[in-house]
Amino acid sequence: MNIADCQTTLSLHERANEMYQLIAELYPICRSITGNGFRETLRRIGKHIPLTVHEVPTGTRVFDWTVPREWNIRDAYIKNSRGEKIIDFHKSNLHVVSYSVPIQQKLSLDELKAHLFTLPDYPAWIPYRTSYYKEDWGFCLSHEQLLAMQDDTFEVYIDSSLEDGSLTYGEYYLQGESTDEVLISCHSCHPSLANDNLSGVTLTTLLAQELSQLTLRYSYRFLFIPGTIGSITWLALNESKVTNIKHGLVVTGVGDQGKSTYKKSRRGDADIDKAAIHVLQHSGKDYDIIEFFPYGYDERQYCSPGFNLSVGCLMRTPHGRYPEYHTSADNVDFVKPLSLADSFSKCLSILYILENNTAYLNQNPKCEPQLGKRGLYQMMGGQADRKTQEMAMLWVLNLSDGQHSLLDIASKSGLEFSLIHHAACLLATSGLLKDGRGL
Amino acid sequence: MNIADCQTTLSLHERANEMYQLIAELYPICRSITGNGFRETLRRIGKHIPLTVHEVPTGTRVFDWTVPREWNIRDAYIKNSRGEKIIDFHKSNLHVVSYSVPIQQKLSLDELKAHLFTLPDYPAWIPYRTSYYKEDWGFCLSHEQLLAMQDDTFEVYIDSSLEDGSLTYGEYYLQGESTDEVLISCHSCHPSLANDNLSGVTLTTLLAQELSQLTLRYSYRFLFIPGTIGSITWLALNESKVTNIKHGLVVTGVGDQGKSTYKKSRRGDADIDKAAIHVLQHSGKDYDIIEFFPYGYDERQYCSPGFNLSVGCLMRTPHGRYPEYHTSADNVDFVKPLSLADSFSKCLSILYILENNTAYLNQNPKCEPQLGKRGLYQMMGGQADRKTQEMAMLWVLNLSDGQHSLLDIASKSGLEFSLIHHAACLLATSGLLKDGRGL
Amino acid sequence: MNIADCQTTLSLHERANEMYQLIAELYPICRSITGNGFRETLRRIGKHIPLTVHEVPTGTRVFDWTVPREWNIRDAYIKNSRGEKIIDFHKSNLHVVSYSVPIQQKLSLDELKAHLFTLPDYPAWIPYRTSYYKEDWGFCLSHEQLLAMQDDTFEVYIDSSLEDGSLTYGEYYLQGESTDEVLISCHSCHPSLANDNLSGVTLTTLLAQELSQLTLRYSYRFLFIPGTIGSITWLALNESKVTNIKHGLVVTGVGDQGKSTYKKSRRGDADIDKAAIHVLQHSGKDYDIIEFFPYGYDERQYCSPGFNLSVGCLMRTPHGRYPEYHTSADNVDFVKPLSLADSFSKCLSILYILENNTAYLNQNPKCEPQLGKRGLYQMMGGQADRKTQEMAMLWVLNLSDGQHSLLDIASKSGLEFSLIHHAACLLATSGLLKDGRGL
Repeated sequence: MNIADCQTTLSLHERANEMYQLIAELYPICRSITGNGFRETLRRIGKHIPLTVHEVPTGTRVFDWTVPREWNIRDAYIKNSRGEKIIDFHKSNLHVVSYSVPIQQKLSLDELKAHLFTLPDYPAWIPYRTSYYKEDWGFCLSHEQLLAMQDDTFEVYIDSSLEDGSLTYGEYYLQGESTDEVLISCHSCHPSLANDNLSGVTLTTLLAQELSQLTLRYSYRFLFIPGTIGSITWLALNESKVTNIKHGLVVTGVGDQGKSTYKKSRRGDADIDKAAIHVLQHSGKDYDIIEFFPYGYDERQYCSPGFNLSVGCLMRTPHGRYPEYHTSADNVDFVKPLSLADSFSKCLSILYILENNTAYLNQNPKCEPQLGKRGLYQMMGGQADRKTQEMAMLWVLNLSDGQHSLLDIASKSGLEFSLIHHAACLLATSGLLKDGRGL
Repeated sequence: MNIADCQTTLSLHERANEMYQLIAELYPICRSITGNGFRETLRRIGKHIPLTVHEVPTGTRVFDWTVPREWNIRDAYIKNSRGEKIIDFHKSNLHVVSYSVPIQQKLSLDELKAHLFTLPDYPAWIPYRTSYYKEDWGFCLSHEQLLAMQDDTFEVYIDSSLEDGSLTYGEYYLQGESTDEVLISCHSCHPSLANDNLSGVTLTTLLAQELSQLTLRYSYRFLFIPGTIGSITWLALNESKVTNIKHGLVVTGVGDQGKSTYKKSRRGDADIDKAAIHVLQHSGKDYDIIEFFPYGYDERQYCSPGFNLSVGCLMRTPHGRYPEYHTSADNVDFVKPLSLADSFSKCLSILYILENNTAYLNQNPKCEPQLGKRGLYQMMGGQADRKTQEMAMLWVLNLSDGQHSLLDIASKSGLEFSLIHHAACLLATSGLLKDGRGL
Repeated sequence: MNIADCQTTLSLHERANEMYQLIAELYPICRSITGNGFRETLRRIGKHIPLTVHEVPTGTRVFDWTVPREWNIRDAYIKNSRGEKIIDFHKSNLHVVSYSVPIQQKLSLDELKAHLFTLPDYPAWIPYRTSYYKEDWGFCLSHEQLLAMQDDTFEVYIDSSLEDGSLTYGEYYLQGESTDEVLISCHSCHPSLANDNLSGVTLTTLLAQELSQLTLRYSYRFLFIPGTIGSITWLALNESKVTNIKHGLVVTGVGDQGKSTYKKSRRGDADIDKAAIHVLQHSGKDYDIIEFFPYGYDERQYCSPGFNLSVGCLMRTPHGRYPEYHTSADNVDFVKPLSLADSFSKCLSILYILENNTAYLNQNPKCEPQLGKRGLYQMMGGQADRKTQEMAMLWVLNLSDGQHSLLDIASKSGLEFSLIHHAACLLATSGLLKDGRGL
């Protein structure tokens, strides 16, 4: 079974429900860029796909960076003078600024305020904050909670540890026919945030599971990494493998109800760019294509000038463009099975194109071949769309000159890739085309 | 006399009337892709230009195709049980599906209906149908005729023959100064259809006649061929001549009242494309430029990847975009002398550009030459357009650097080619330009 | 001090007033393409900058042209039969057609009229006319003056001389770090015309004065020349220096109230084009960018195909597009200090870009460098625009691959050049970039 077969047989509805359940399962875990929350997340992903878990020791030099100390947290709260926990880590792991150092102290409200973060514009939501590279501590809370705090003496307690340990990431390498590979990368370091993190994590997991059952032209590498430091670490430790990466996608924020957005690779005209644009253009739905810019997710590293990989980013609403982004409102209700299903389907369609985007050579390049005597006018589909299908064959024949891939032909003709691909298969079977993959 | 002189002296009105009369003369003949109708058509064209008639035997292999058997028809009708001819080939040769095999049979209405073709949306019109590569027979009739047919026993009679013979085509090669040639091709295989066939045939005939009286830079090859199989046959039998073809036009459907349409060659930026686009842009009339697509007329073959000739297609309303297309309504009344005249004039303008599109070399490339001391400010036309004409000279001087043809200069300056050409001639006469044709 | 420092410290208001005063001072002088008016103009410019005055003898061959005889004028008038001066050169030097030969004659009104030029559409204005290359004489007057003339015998007197002498031009070469140079050219041959001439002359003068106090990467060459024949003469006599000219600007018509217009060099994508377009795009004001055409000012010569220099033209309303052009209405009131200030500022901004448009090489091209540990997040400006400034650093790092200049990066990122430049300086100081100027 290949991707095309998979596309026709698979139940998107089922996949969406599985993704949604996995999001719900992973949501309560307190992840950060290192630590046990990340490990636990990988353990659960590992039930779906044969993940290799890597541990990279604190202090390892990775290009200009150093793998940081490992952070773990067990408990944290703010108590008022009556001993009531007014902020409790166990109610939401967003309450603690990620990488907060341990603390146990009594503070006045004024002293405490320097360590409190709220969103006055969204008074019911808790913000998400980190302090990875500067030793500090802090609490995030809703603005309503802050306003309710009277002048008092507060007990602040964070039972965390920041010690030498390791950075953990998960990797699944799926061997295809070729050593050329497609990279699928998702950051997996956010705590209870559903869209910005878990939507990408679960889509990548189920996509990997699905592909593992198929016959594939490319090999696939799935990375579950902490953002920024994770991709830098992987690139630093795997430099020799990088030349195998022919195409790549960063998958993130794929569960909200916004339209699909594809951010181009730094190259701007890589096959992954053309494939993703084709899929969105033919999706029948609204979409956005945006140019590469050196901000966002791990495409920043994959597309740094020293690598310049053909890696784009598939998402729905871009980061920072929806108010729920990096707040407690990016919860399990914020992501929708229908959006997950649609994003999953678009990923499959993009990979279907990459897998089948061959450049053929017309074996009868002088004048058109006589399709009728080969029965090629009848072989494709129903009468209604016969004309489109004949056009697809004529386009493939006309442009299979060694200069145009099937994706180029789809683009020039305005026809969907699958039509062009199907036409090419029929023509190849009839001996009218020769696979010029190695061109 | 050259084309420019011809353009100023010729009576378009007379040419249009001659074309129109020739359309009327050729209209009744029952043409098909082979047979005596085609031969008779060429015989009449041969009264206007010295046509060479080629006969290619049935069975000749032409690339992936085989020259088919020759079809001829003498009579055909459907009689009702009262012996009345309700459908009569002699009233319209569209009544018989082209390449129908001979038949004489009695049939019920139901049995007959499988062989009858009508246009329910245009109940008064007879459709045009062919069955070249599948042995069959059929009648085309108006939907009104069909509705008038009562249940009855019908006598069906087609006195045709489908036998070994030959494919006929006409060719006129007009020697110019150079062996580089311009191809003008028209399909001539349609029976009583005035616009889709005869407008192109007659324009090509009169254009050839006109050019034969002129001094020409290029050699010209005019082909009167059956559609598809004719161009394939010519290409297969004349492969060695193909490299001489520098520019080409398929001329077809040039008599209806729609705006002029130019379909680009597969190359998309060939000189023929630039020339035709320039002419339409400066025509002062509405027009359409369309990209190449591998469907339509014989440009499909000339632009197949193994040839990829610089051949575009000049028409008015594209095939299939007007309801009269391939029906009895595409009759002599459907084409208009004014449209024929306009199309003829545009063809001449395109050829005028090709004939004169030289790349000159400015002999005084450092700073402007002093035009005044050479009297060049006064030499061109009246005071009113002197400024435009001086601009034309300055543009030609500035861009005659070996990288720009006169057509490029016309395009960059926005000025009409004839202005640019006239300016270049004056400058060349003054020794300020050197003909760089051989660049 | 460099241009950036100058931009922040200089008083545009003061410069505008100086330009305006210099325009007023130079306005009454009767300039032509040769003669004492031109010399007197250079003498006064020479009080501001150390100008070298060149004299090129009449008869000198300069490419296709010959340096003309020198023209000087002392007096001219038309007297009526009552001895009243009805037209007096001393009231406006526009009254005499430039290069008029000496004359003293009595004429009837009819005979005189062949030598009188007016603007019927602007009856109060005197036109500006020349007859450089055809020996003739004439008077320009307002149409009102013409209408007031009764039939009479008129005494016509022009005390001019047209004799062997020389063509005069001024040049100021300002040595920078490199022998690569920027050419700033203005025509200075028009008599009492304020915008079309003196605005460019005075802006060039004050720009030269300003730059002479700065540390400069490029050398600068300022030319004060008669139009057309002046640039041709300079190019002919200085051919060996031409290869040093890397960028250039013709400055003219920069004092009217119209929007800024930049006319591209013939190359169309030279750095001067990109820099000027960037400045206008980020000016926050309306502007026009126009393609090169071989008419206008001395860019016609600099951009002739044998030189094809990267020279554009900065102006406000293009020549001929305002009714005051080449009339007595282009007077001191027509130019505005605010417009002069704005044009001056834009020139400085363009030169600031050229001076700093380096291509850097990212020394840490694999993944992003860790900016935080170098304190680079805090080093730029206030909190408010910190995000934009971080983006500028990320853009510079991402695109400093040897293929992109800072101007390219500004263009791709949409950020202002100064932001990009500032970011690059910080990164270079941190050792993250290496100056790749010599790429």
